[in-house]
Amino acid sequence: MSRKKADLIILNASEMLTLAGGEVPRREVAMSDLGVVSGGALAVKGSRIEAAGSSREILDSWHSKQAIDASGCVVMPGFVDPHTHPVFAGSRENEFEMRIRGKTYEEIAAAGGGILNSVARLRATPTEALYASARARLDLFLEYGTTTVEAKSGYGLSVDDEMRSLQVLKDLARSHPVEIAPTLLGAHKVPPEFAGRRKEYVSLVAGVMIPIAAKTNLAEYCDVFCERGAFTVSESRTILKAAKNAGLGIRIHADQFSASGGSKLAAELGAASADHLEAVSAAGIRMLAGSGAVAVLLPGSSFFLDQSRFAPARKLIEAGVPVALATDFNPGSSMTHSMQIILTLACLRLKMTPAEAITAATINAAAAIGRHDRIGSIEAGKKADIIILSVPNHRYIPYHFGGNHVRTVIKKGKVVIRR
Amino acid sequence: MSRKKADLIILNASEMLTLAGGEVPRREVAMSDLGVVSGGALAVKGSRIEAAGSSREILDSWHSKQAIDASGCVVMPGFVDPHTHPVFAGSRENEFEMRIRGKTYEEIAAAGGGILNSVARLRATPTEALYASARARLDLFLEYGTTTVEAKSGYGLSVDDEMRSLQVLKDLARSHPVEIAPTLLGAHKVPPEFAGRRKEYVSLVAGVMIPIAAKTNLAEYCDVFCERGAFTVSESRTILKAAKNAGLGIRIHADQFSASGGSKLAAELGAASADHLEAVSAAGIRMLAGSGAVAVLLPGSSFFLDQSRFAPARKLIEAGVPVALATDFNPGSSMTHSMQIILTLACLRLKMTPAEAITAATINAAAAIGRHDRIGSIEAGKKADIIILSVPNHRYIPYHFGGNHVRTVIKKGKVVIRR
Repeated sequence: MSRKKADLIILNASEMLTLAGGEVPRREVAMSDLGVVSGGALAVKGSRIEAAGSSREILDSWHSKQAIDASGCVVMPGFVDPHTHPVFAGSRENEFEMRIRGKTYEEIAAAGGGILNSVARLRATPTEALYASARARLDLFLEYGTTTVEAKSGYGLSVDDEMRSLQVLKDLARSHPVEIAPTLLGAHKVPPEFAGRRKEYVSLVAGVMIPIAAKTNLAEYCDVFCERGAFTVSESRTILKAAKNAGLGIRIHADQFSASGGSKLAAELGAASADHLEAVSAAGIRMLAGSGAVAVLLPGSSFFLDQSRFAPARKLIEAGVPVALATDFNPGSSMTHSMQIILTLACLRLKMTPAEAITAATINAAAAIGRHDRIGSIEAGKKADIIILSVPNHRYIPYHFGGNHVRTVIKKGKVVIRR
Repeated sequence: MSRKKADLIILNASEMLTLAGGEVPRREVAMSDLGVVSGGALAVKGSRIEAAGSSREILDSWHSKQAIDASGCVVMPGFVDPHTHPVFAGSRENEFEMRIRGKTYEEIAAAGGGILNSVARLRATPTEALYASARARLDLFLEYGTTTVEAKSGYGLSVDDEMRSLQVLKDLARSHPVEIAPTLLGAHKVPPEFAGRRKEYVSLVAGVMIPIAAKTNLAEYCDVFCERGAFTVSESRTILKAAKNAGLGIRIHADQFSASGGSKLAAELGAASADHLEAVSAAGIRMLAGSGAVAVLLPGSSFFLDQSRFAPARKLIEAGVPVALATDFNPGSSMTHSMQIILTLACLRLKMTPAEAITAATINAAAAIGRHDRIGSIEAGKKADIIILSVPNHRYIPYHFGGNHVRTVIKKGKVVIRR
């Protein structure tokens, strides 16, 4: 039998985690099924996976000039990070120290720090500098194995500054290996110049930002920070309905500090995801189950804010809500780019098993941003977004923490990181 | 004025953290004083720091063919990690998953897992393989900026296997850039073959292991795991007195799960350090203050065991106990090599400020292993153990977490890591 020519084959993985088959997003028992192939291998042609199986099967059917021996390693889909805020200026390590000294995140925000601190800085920063800093952050994501991110605006809070932020993401999407699902988060916070005129700001987001972002294809999703101190359920509904009408997908920062009703709104409106959920109620969990929304959990944020309350991952999983994980990368409440430390936090604090956490960081995360047909698993026909980790098995990934297990990153069939 | 010739100069640090001057180990207010020099620089000759100051001062007095521009970076002493267990075989990710599923660390240990699991594996592993795995771990320490570690035996628990473990450390100390302070931890746990014969095992440690380790210079310190399920205060006293008599320094795993009296014993015997202290009593803190012992806190262990109780760092600092930080790197209760994630944990969970945490990870950690006269600060005459971090200021180090900020590592004047 003549063998077919591939552009790249990867062989001899200790464990290849395919995440293949079954219902997507995965729920409950299926979250534990990583589709492990011992001695796994795959063949890539162009940007796509052509075949995946045992090393014997792949070598019987494929040949390639470029072959990577993954002996002693885990081969898996690149991490998908479905909740990040990578477009900001400066950093907020001073507020980090203020929190250690006893101030709460909400007290710092009320005193003009927090999100509005980043807003003032972004507005004063030229677009080229925003682009350069966001690009450096994408480099870090990639180095730690993340091949696709959802990325939000939300530190501009004016039509110009929000569109500028989204344009930075669009330019990066064209020029950087990391794939981006861009989200308009004009409703991150009411900006200071609209103090006392909340209704007008909601109208600006719904009536101006959303139509522009949709028409110019600058955003694929619209998100709202539905929380006390940010936007009410009613305001969030107005904005997200406008987004739906404009053809954008929708997501919600829901029930982070209080059971504000964000998860119920997500279910009501058919959101792609309800994110955070640290304070979600039993009723909120019931509403989410079967709504089609993916619960995107952000343990990095609970950790970084040193909250005792983490999202009730086990209750969500048991209720049949599909669960994904994300970094929530942002300068105020979760300053990490690493999905690997998020997996550790998910295991330790959310009591997710390593297998559940990996499912949540790949195929379920892809589903949370509507890309499960293209990425998030190792299956013929999918994009070849693959990472090779220097670990003996998948449990080792969250177990040995605080470092970077990534040896090789492949995005759309190209080797983009070799360490 | 003619300039003197250096082998290496480092210039233009955004912040050079000298940790210079004052009482060592540092206590209370002094722990916040990093001796920051803006635009800092230093000159190295051979393995030693010749001078440190402003870039202008250094350039006025020194020239060198090798110069490193540290613009935009923090320059500081290499991390000193004063509590690690790097000599073991295999890993224990299965137990990590068992804990997530609800078993406690002590339940796993009682069922034959835990330390005794590692003991069985080490005994079955040839010395060359032990050496190779420990060497790979030291590589990781160095990559993350740790230039000196205290390193314990303790997974052998027979005379031969403990000496074999210490010999691995001695061989590594000769051949690897990371400097090692070797510690005999024969009293980590009573091995299974001594079940019902605890007294005989204590005699073996005190009467055989300690004299051999001391006479052959295989150990510099002796440590005891003084805890329920391990060794009583009385047994610990017997062992540590024998160590003192043999000329070894002493350290104690004290008050980790219960206020067992380990900290009082540390004070009584003049230990170099009392380590863990999650459960230390107010009386224990009073005993430690002024005893000369350094409190070595291990927040990675509390984090990894998902305990709600962390060591009372603020109370220890306020009582005038000098505090150091360490990874507790080991396969069961703290699988991390990174002092950087330990700094983040110290800030978030121990409520240490970034400056206090950095002091605890450098000069105070050096004091905990009796090396404060040679390492732990940037001062003329000290060893040139220096790290350059790609961060704008020292607060940023714990703030941006889950990665590796290290750009360059210099050990005894030689550049050993460049990233």
